[in-house]
Amino acid sequence: MGLSVLKFGGTSVASPDLMLAAARRVADLRRQARGVAVVVSAMGHTTDELLELADAINPHPPRRETDMLLATGEQVSIALLAMALHSLGIPATSMTGPQVAIRTTASHTRARIRSIDTARLLAELNAGRVVVVAGFQGVTDDGQITTLGRGGSDTTAVALAAALAADVCEIFTDVDGVYTADPRLVPDARKLERISYDEMLELAVLGAGVMHSRAVQFGQRYNVPIHVRHSRKNDAGTLITRESPEMENASVVGCALKENLGRVSLRDLPNKPGVDAAIFNALAEADINVDDIIQNEASGGGMNISFTVEHRDLADIKPAMERVLAECGRGEQLIDVGLSRVSVVGLGMRHHTGVAAKMFTALADAGINIFNITTSEIKISCIINRSDGEKALKAVHAAFDLADGQPTTIDTLTPMRSVRV
Amino acid sequence: MGLSVLKFGGTSVASPDLMLAAARRVADLRRQARGVAVVVSAMGHTTDELLELADAINPHPPRRETDMLLATGEQVSIALLAMALHSLGIPATSMTGPQVAIRTTASHTRARIRSIDTARLLAELNAGRVVVVAGFQGVTDDGQITTLGRGGSDTTAVALAAALAADVCEIFTDVDGVYTADPRLVPDARKLERISYDEMLELAVLGAGVMHSRAVQFGQRYNVPIHVRHSRKNDAGTLITRESPEMENASVVGCALKENLGRVSLRDLPNKPGVDAAIFNALAEADINVDDIIQNEASGGGMNISFTVEHRDLADIKPAMERVLAECGRGEQLIDVGLSRVSVVGLGMRHHTGVAAKMFTALADAGINIFNITTSEIKISCIINRSDGEKALKAVHAAFDLADGQPTTIDTLTPMRSVRV
Repeated sequence: MGLSVLKFGGTSVASPDLMLAAARRVADLRRQARGVAVVVSAMGHTTDELLELADAINPHPPRRETDMLLATGEQVSIALLAMALHSLGIPATSMTGPQVAIRTTASHTRARIRSIDTARLLAELNAGRVVVVAGFQGVTDDGQITTLGRGGSDTTAVALAAALAADVCEIFTDVDGVYTADPRLVPDARKLERISYDEMLELAVLGAGVMHSRAVQFGQRYNVPIHVRHSRKNDAGTLITRESPEMENASVVGCALKENLGRVSLRDLPNKPGVDAAIFNALAEADINVDDIIQNEASGGGMNISFTVEHRDLADIKPAMERVLAECGRGEQLIDVGLSRVSVVGLGMRHHTGVAAKMFTALADAGINIFNITTSEIKISCIINRSDGEKALKAVHAAFDLADGQPTTIDTLTPMRSVRV
Repeated sequence: MGLSVLKFGGTSVASPDLMLAAARRVADLRRQARGVAVVVSAMGHTTDELLELADAINPHPPRRETDMLLATGEQVSIALLAMALHSLGIPATSMTGPQVAIRTTASHTRARIRSIDTARLLAELNAGRVVVVAGFQGVTDDGQITTLGRGGSDTTAVALAAALAADVCEIFTDVDGVYTADPRLVPDARKLERISYDEMLELAVLGAGVMHSRAVQFGQRYNVPIHVRHSRKNDAGTLITRESPEMENASVVGCALKENLGRVSLRDLPNKPGVDAAIFNALAEADINVDDIIQNEASGGGMNISFTVEHRDLADIKPAMERVLAECGRGEQLIDVGLSRVSVVGLGMRHHTGVAAKMFTALADAGINIFNITTSEIKISCIINRSDGEKALKAVHAAFDLADGQPTTIDTLTPMRSVRV
């Protein structure tokens, strides 16, 4: 086994005892690998506590200072994990993002990694030391401390694995892996042994909270196998990897539910070029993500467009769309709240027919009304009433035989070389 | 008024409310000065809490990792103080020790400042921004984060004032200034308007806790006026400055008590060259500070030597001295515990006679037995029983007319230019 990058999330290092447990885990893997780099998040609720402290002082702080503040959370973790490793006799060196030289853009609180300098990392690894790197943070070319936003530590870990050409990036977390559905909602959901980057990306965007999509994108771009597993169990978790032909044997690999959505419908807009651009520029300026975009011609010759947004963005979206309608000179805005999205995802959908029909039938049999349907090459999403969410997820999960104990092709695959860590 | 460096200790920024109060203080002074740099310590008991966390993980952590951990405390403070200043409409930029480029030696947990790069500081100051600098921390030439040990934030502030050629370094703390004696022990102690670096150094070493001696030494070397004052009062505090002829008018400027001392007496050592060197090399190796060194010839032709140490060092000192005695081939070690040191300090001692006589008479009149006496040009120290400590301090304070309301020459001095801040 060559080089491994391990990542421990905040819940896995939330106390001194857990920190020592993580260190023992690193020590075990250290014996099997040529080199180990560990990425660690801030302990437990540290980040939220720091944000509360800031809020009590300035509810609208400069984002540069928010980054200065938040970066301390991971710095505490790396020092303590290095101390824990030393207590087990494992030589270890902690490094902040700026010390590694994880260069990012200057967009404070949501910076993006531009490059990672591996010289200092390799010097430590070649000296036989474990390097413990602060997740979530980096540095601009002129020395400003930045943070990467949500999912930042996962992104740091995968980017580090890419930069070091590591064999695997192991994400230790508080769940067993990626499931066919959220096991809190669907008790017979099954843990997946493998999933492709594309499928994981769809699931991450659609509501599965295991991995942030940015980290998965990084893994896909640099072909880093990502192994998501429980920090206190020895069982293998789920390997996120590039697709192989066998992956298309199953039509659907998993399903997801995203709650608390609102639908914005703009009706009877002028049917002329530039209207879509005006709408989506306004959304981009307001920094609002939308999904499930549907456009069609209205009966009177005008144009209808609808999309979903998260509830928390509705307050911002209403005035932004009103300005667009005023510019258009015609049209009206309707907002529906209390919606959810149920989705199925699978590479096999490309070649299996009848997936959509099976999904709609399952929802109809459960008496669930569908408001919107959107599809991509490997997913189908239906907008439904929020009150139908859990029932819909269970119905779809059952319809595609995803439950634990069901024989599926995926379970019979040979594990990849890089899963044997 | 030109450039000011302000420093807020941990108790002055221990909560969001106190942080905002400190920011208002900075805002007030900002209006009067051309430029303001603020040095800030970790909030309240943060440093102790971080050390407890580390201790639960590894009781003997590598000192490099202790520095990595502790440096986060000041980083939290600078971010929050910068946010607080922004909330008052004051443009401010926080900077860590490494960002400023406060270069230190590589002695982790007790590094010493070697140089301060003022380029980035001046760029911010010239742009009209307040710079908020993390105290207590620096960086080695190869990018390792270091901390400066006890009194480190004071040292950062004074060093910064020296590097920036500031007019004054204002140390905001939770006491009103430097007193003729600790006002908790001597209720009628008087706040000093001014004191010389040399007197403050002696008092700091002898037990007055207001300023750490390293910061005072830095001030003396670079002639930085240091103004020690209360963070939540507008009154002037005490100006620590270079000596002026008038300072010698009073024979004694203040007195101090240091408790919890032990006395190590080595008796009947061989009277030959190299014995002292062996003893003090052994103490240096064990990293133990000693004071009140007295050496004389024993009646039998051998040599006696005694010195005081803090109680906490006694466990380390005993085996170290036993090894020295074994090398010498003769001599015995006696250890007395439960001692204290009472001292008087004053530049005027150089020219006033009878200071020692007055001190010994005061102690004798109070029925206090003196075990050892040591003197320097500007101080006299007596080792006494710890149980006599407070009584001795009061007796000496009264004997030299140091009490509040007493007419002394120092009170009638004209304030220096730089105290008018």
